[in-house]
Amino acid sequence: MKYVRRHVQRLAPYVPGEQPLERGLIKLNTNENPFPPSPKVLKAVKAAVDGRLRLYPDPTAQELRAKLARFHKCKVDNVIVGNGSDELLALATRAFVEPGRGTIQYFTPSYSLYPVLSDIHNSTRIEVPLRDDFSMPSVGELQNEKQWDFRAPLTFVTTPNAPSGRGYATAELEALCRALKGVVVLDEAYVDFAEEDALALALKYPNVIVSRTFSKAYSLCFQRVGYFVGRPALIGALDRIRDSYNVNGLGQIAALASLKDFSYYRKNFRLVKKMRKAVAGELQGLGFKVFLSATNFLLVKPPRYVARTWLKKLRAHKVLVRWFSGTEVKGFLRITIGNEQEMSAFLRVVKRVIVGA
Amino acid sequence: MKYVRRHVQRLAPYVPGEQPLERGLIKLNTNENPFPPSPKVLKAVKAAVDGRLRLYPDPTAQELRAKLARFHKCKVDNVIVGNGSDELLALATRAFVEPGRGTIQYFTPSYSLYPVLSDIHNSTRIEVPLRDDFSMPSVGELQNEKQWDFRAPLTFVTTPNAPSGRGYATAELEALCRALKGVVVLDEAYVDFAEEDALALALKYPNVIVSRTFSKAYSLCFQRVGYFVGRPALIGALDRIRDSYNVNGLGQIAALASLKDFSYYRKNFRLVKKMRKAVAGELQGLGFKVFLSATNFLLVKPPRYVARTWLKKLRAHKVLVRWFSGTEVKGFLRITIGNEQEMSAFLRVVKRVIVGA
Repeated sequence: MKYVRRHVQRLAPYVPGEQPLERGLIKLNTNENPFPPSPKVLKAVKAAVDGRLRLYPDPTAQELRAKLARFHKCKVDNVIVGNGSDELLALATRAFVEPGRGTIQYFTPSYSLYPVLSDIHNSTRIEVPLRDDFSMPSVGELQNEKQWDFRAPLTFVTTPNAPSGRGYATAELEALCRALKGVVVLDEAYVDFAEEDALALALKYPNVIVSRTFSKAYSLCFQRVGYFVGRPALIGALDRIRDSYNVNGLGQIAALASLKDFSYYRKNFRLVKKMRKAVAGELQGLGFKVFLSATNFLLVKPPRYVARTWLKKLRAHKVLVRWFSGTEVKGFLRITIGNEQEMSAFLRVVKRVIVGA
Repeated sequence: MKYVRRHVQRLAPYVPGEQPLERGLIKLNTNENPFPPSPKVLKAVKAAVDGRLRLYPDPTAQELRAKLARFHKCKVDNVIVGNGSDELLALATRAFVEPGRGTIQYFTPSYSLYPVLSDIHNSTRIEVPLRDDFSMPSVGELQNEKQWDFRAPLTFVTTPNAPSGRGYATAELEALCRALKGVVVLDEAYVDFAEEDALALALKYPNVIVSRTFSKAYSLCFQRVGYFVGRPALIGALDRIRDSYNVNGLGQIAALASLKDFSYYRKNFRLVKKMRKAVAGELQGLGFKVFLSATNFLLVKPPRYVARTWLKKLRAHKVLVRWFSGTEVKGFLRITIGNEQEMSAFLRVVKRVIVGA
């Protein structure tokens, strides 16, 4: 008897960006925020590290959800919290798509987890390319696109897009959401570095969910907290199929404390955007093609060597960036915006590589 | 268009034991360990609460898995770590059982999560009762049991059993595992309070997994860390379908530090067992029927009032215990073994209820 389901045997695992054990590396490969969490957040977490770790966390993350509801001017039952937004994206496939025969739809390139989630769920992937400049095809264009299915049970849209960094106008997203008959998840992991967000669409339309995370904007990757906002019918479905204690207690405490000190983070968003602009300018001056970014990273096409060679050369100089093999973006590098010191060091290394050192 | 899958719309959510916001309650309802984590564990977690929270945790929990492998004298690829063992139990349904047509099998009563997981996965449940004293039917008896299916793709066995507390001999479990053709998960959440464990079976048989958790034995419910031990073919399948950053960073650190201070916990296991014996004796003296327990809780049949009335009366005296409605054990209460102070207070309340106060 075979123990493992046939399609699981054939799965290729998701490849996350390298989390190096080696010290002294400049880590610009997984879009982590260069700034630490707020001192108030660290204090709140430390204060909770005592005998209470023996107790179960709140299974419904009630206090955090209530705070998020006030933050977004919605109701508590519009919000579900997950073990990172990745858990919620996976739950969405299981709540909305029939395994074995349903379809999961997204643009390419976008978050490289979507095809992995689709394969895990044994769904059919519908992949439709963005335009060459990573802008979205219009609804009219999608109607002429053979592959695209307006009746797909689940569509993921990364907005702002990763790995390109391109932001999308809410009006454009709204037109897409109205045209789609199934559920749309607007994955706003990077939206705090953009000029616009589409959260209102999740409260306006019965088929729209907005996904957010504390990982990037709130410097809390380590703690695994993300959330979805949407109508109670969708949120309730996800709630019924999640693990009952899915969000660890210190993560809940850290996320709650983050929202209470939002001004600290807003300042960081501004600093990242300023640095993004400065680095983009420098790289353009060095012959890189740089795409306009509404995120905390830049997608660039490097001069002189192909992207993969750049990856290796930067690694040899202790700089980690991200390169995606075998995709439409294999000619590009994705560079996370670090702090001032990191970006100065990065640019020094880039200049050395360009001159062939 | 309906957004939510039909079977998800109909799901009843898992009901976890109450996590009260009210202070001053004696909490004997969710089998948490009465002792705090080791001071060394608290120190290790506190020391990690700094700017590094901005970084992703190790997606493969490499250091923790290596330590667990040494602890259990197996290889790293025999171990997978999860966001609590609940996550891994859910992953097992998705790795080994075809949704919509596969079956998930277990004895009743056992962990009340299994039917929930089966329903979430849209599987058919096979529920076979334990004997009246909560011992397991023999393989011969199961062969005469119409419902039982030796070819079920997945069988869960809670050992020691919850909510009865009864332990099972490894020889008996081995006979069952050999007779089953599909995957068997031996769920040893409470095994550290027992006299025997069945971990060796997970390394001996290609269809056996042993599930463990840091929640109960290591007083780490808050942090959500559990693990499975089994052959690489089974562990690898689970690994391919898990979320890539499924275990939060502080949870990994806490679990690792716990194993490094095992003597602290071994002492606690002894104290819990000693207290369990003392409380069982006291309750028997007061007219309770008490089942022999190999866990950190006691299943008891109370005198004078029905179990549900006891639940309410104890709650009125600020004591929380667990009662399962609508099951074979609805005539019983499940009482977590607390510390000396908690159990003295509990017994005082019990005596007051018995005399009708």
